[in-house]
Amino acid sequence: MDKGLFITLEGPDGSGKSTQIEYLREYFHGKGIETVLTREPGGTEIGEKLRDIILDKGNCEMCDMTEALLYAASRAQHVNQLIKPALEAGKVVVCDRFIDSSIAYQGYGRKLGDAVRVINELAVDGCMPDLTFLMEISPEIGKSRIKSESQDRLEQEKIEFHNRVYAGYREIARFYPARFAEIDAARDKLSIKKDILGRIEKILNDRGF
Amino acid sequence: MDKGLFITLEGPDGSGKSTQIEYLREYFHGKGIETVLTREPGGTEIGEKLRDIILDKGNCEMCDMTEALLYAASRAQHVNQLIKPALEAGKVVVCDRFIDSSIAYQGYGRKLGDAVRVINELAVDGCMPDLTFLMEISPEIGKSRIKSESQDRLEQEKIEFHNRVYAGYREIARFYPARFAEIDAARDKLSIKKDILGRIEKILNDRGF
Repeated sequence: MDKGLFITLEGPDGSGKSTQIEYLREYFHGKGIETVLTREPGGTEIGEKLRDIILDKGNCEMCDMTEALLYAASRAQHVNQLIKPALEAGKVVVCDRFIDSSIAYQGYGRKLGDAVRVINELAVDGCMPDLTFLMEISPEIGKSRIKSESQDRLEQEKIEFHNRVYAGYREIARFYPARFAEIDAARDKLSIKKDILGRIEKILNDRGF
Repeated sequence: MDKGLFITLEGPDGSGKSTQIEYLREYFHGKGIETVLTREPGGTEIGEKLRDIILDKGNCEMCDMTEALLYAASRAQHVNQLIKPALEAGKVVVCDRFIDSSIAYQGYGRKLGDAVRVINELAVDGCMPDLTFLMEISPEIGKSRIKSESQDRLEQEKIEFHNRVYAGYREIARFYPARFAEIDAARDKLSIKKDILGRIEKILNDRGF
């Protein structure tokens, strides 16, 4: 096996990504496959400093293009410093949010449009996920699962914003059907786990892991 | 007068930009013209936080595209929060470094090429300087004027990097001859001041200040 496997999870906050990532950790560990679990924004020392600036509720005057460029800056660092080296070493990389979050949240949610794709294609420099799970759950239900006092600057946005993000996600998934697996995330966590591991088993077999 | 005037100063470190900006401050103050003096990276609260990350010598693992995107993020915030509102209010804005610094340092110096222009045209959203002074002095002489213990992450780069930056600056100036004024910055500061104020007088007359 001369190339790793890059898996991303996308979807509204409260859609259960963290729970499924924990299942993935157990699954790959059980198979003895070396796996890097990471998240965006963040994932590197510089990225975590940028995460603090992006999500700080005090930075309410941040303009939309600044936000989009900061996510892309954090992503470029993440790809260069962590994701590409891990994939080149043949590892599995599981990332909580990646390029599709930017296109959904800043492109559709903030209405910055195609500029977000342009910026991010420069940031990722060809390093795209092999498989992306889109956790489908209505933003209302997702939001109701998060404690309101723990919400960050983006989670605090109005429901219309989150509805645009969600519609954006589904549109992106239709553009890239080979890469995306759409998962009904309104079900119990074990049914979701079964769907996700089914897709993973298939791609592991295809890739000769 | 229904539109402000946007002036930028560019050139190697140690080329005397700060001294000339102080002369500009005195000049506009003497004429009773409301003027905003600012700098990049920085110029806003969010921008100053990003400046600290960009220039921190501890962030030596920062990849080139991350650096370019961070400068652009800081610039987008600067344009939206400070420069555009000031120009719309009819003020003069004098900025120490702007878009041409990114194209010279990241595009030519880091060899990221045209991607830097693409990113920054999205960041500035049409807000380009009316007049840009390029302080021309060889990077060797510029560098010799700065105390080495006070040099930041970019100033510490090797002379080959600074020579590419300087050649880049001169190429950009040739692309935009109407916007650029090339200033021989190896002379004494009062001769330089005379040249700069001469160009400013002309544009103020043209613009009806």
